[in-house]
Amino acid sequence: MKIYETATAPNPRRVRMFLAEKGLLDEVEFVQIDLQKGENLSPEFTAKNPMRKVPVLELEDGICISETMAICRYFEEAYPESTALLGRSALEKALVEQWLRWVEFYFAVPTGMAFQHTSGYFKDRMKCFPEWGEDCKTAVTKFMGFLDSQLSTRSYLCGDALTIADINAFTTVQFARVIKVRIPDDHPHLQAWHDRMLARPSAKV
Amino acid sequence: MKIYETATAPNPRRVRMFLAEKGLLDEVEFVQIDLQKGENLSPEFTAKNPMRKVPVLELEDGICISETMAICRYFEEAYPESTALLGRSALEKALVEQWLRWVEFYFAVPTGMAFQHTSGYFKDRMKCFPEWGEDCKTAVTKFMGFLDSQLSTRSYLCGDALTIADINAFTTVQFARVIKVRIPDDHPHLQAWHDRMLARPSAKV
Ligand SMILES: N[C@@H](CCC(=O)N[C@@H](CS)C(=O)NCC(=O)O)C(=O)O
Ligand SMILES: N[C@@H](CCC(=O)N[C@@H](CS)C(=O)NCC(=O)O)C(=O)O
Repeated sequence: MKIYETATAPNPRRVRMFLAEKGLLDEVEFVQIDLQKGENLSPEFTAKNPMRKVPVLELEDGICISETMAICRYFEEAYPESTALLGRSALEKALVEQWLRWVEFYFAVPTGMAFQHTSGYFKDRMKCFPEWGEDCKTAVTKFMGFLDSQLSTRSYLCGDALTIADINAFTTVQFARVIKVRIPDDHPHLQAWHDRMLARPSAKV
Repeated sequence: MKIYETATAPNPRRVRMFLAEKGLLDEVEFVQIDLQKGENLSPEFTAKNPMRKVPVLELEDGICISETMAICRYFEEAYPESTALLGRSALEKALVEQWLRWVEFYFAVPTGMAFQHTSGYFKDRMKCFPEWGEDCKTAVTKFMGFLDSQLSTRSYLCGDALTIADINAFTTVQFARVIKVRIPDDHPHLQAWHDRMLARPSAKV
């Protein structure tokens, strides 16, 4: 299997961290795509993912699966003996999905928008609205406060065990440095969780 | 079980349609929340969902699950004998998730943003950037073209059977009327799929 990705981009990093936590990194060959050069806009890449984004998983038979969470779900289901990171029971799966989506809609998406609209990194392919980007930064900072309060009572977002929600929140906290949003000094629980995440071997891949 | 929702809002509609397709509507009591009056901003509601959005599922023991897809996943997993709408095999589940997320990120989110930023419906609780909202409309129209091309070769987005991706795309097409984006005349495949979806009893709930 191959994964088309960009080592520095946050969504591919989520997939790598997920695979590392499951011990499945060796199942996959990673192929680098240069986003700023627009390699993801080529006809070959568009045939793999019509949305022209990384990451994309290509199976042995050539079937392509794009979207970070679709790729993670494929591995979760295809390797049931590996550590579950999307929950086990119906209730656990639902609560992981809830947290994942809180992190995505109210933290990762605003961070991405703030980056795209204030940096102009992709201005060859999109219109930028810097004031909207600034407003998104406010949402990012606010969500850090919510994370800090939630992490005062438990080790990980969904309880005692790491899930995909922690991975996505962690990569977002790290990516938020590009929009100059850092964990505020008065957020000790978020900082402690961040340091716990950073100490995991999966944070290095 | 109770679902807190708003009958006219698109995310609650997704959940109702999903439950109707599964034959599970009777499992749930629906409680209406008036969003424009800000009933979702009350301390009682915030305790159920700190993000202050509908829908929210409240289980018999008081546990609350928010986020449309977390609620759908709960029912998919807790009622395995009902029609599967999130896929069966690892590959099917991954491809449904891919399609769902294409629909969410590149169609439903821009439609919601266009609505919020151009109508001022929630201007008591957010800053509006009308030019950004207009740019989102362009993305919505473009995605309709993609849907039309994809639906030229099959009945539903993931193949011959309806999935959650169709439900979310359908409720988005219908909600897009509020931002005055309608299926263009030269999109016969999208129109035929829309009419097939509209004819399902689940479209009436
Ligand atoms: N919803 C997609 C988002 C993927 C995405 O936005 N990828 C970025 C890199 S993190 C990208 O490919 N950007 C290139 C571009 O927008 O041209 C996912 O979860 O995989
Ligand atoms: N990501 C959430 C989005 C929920 C959402 O945005 N709900 C809207 C109605 S469709 C809402 O409650 N808006 C009220 C507000 O923003 O104050 C989900 O999928 O459930």
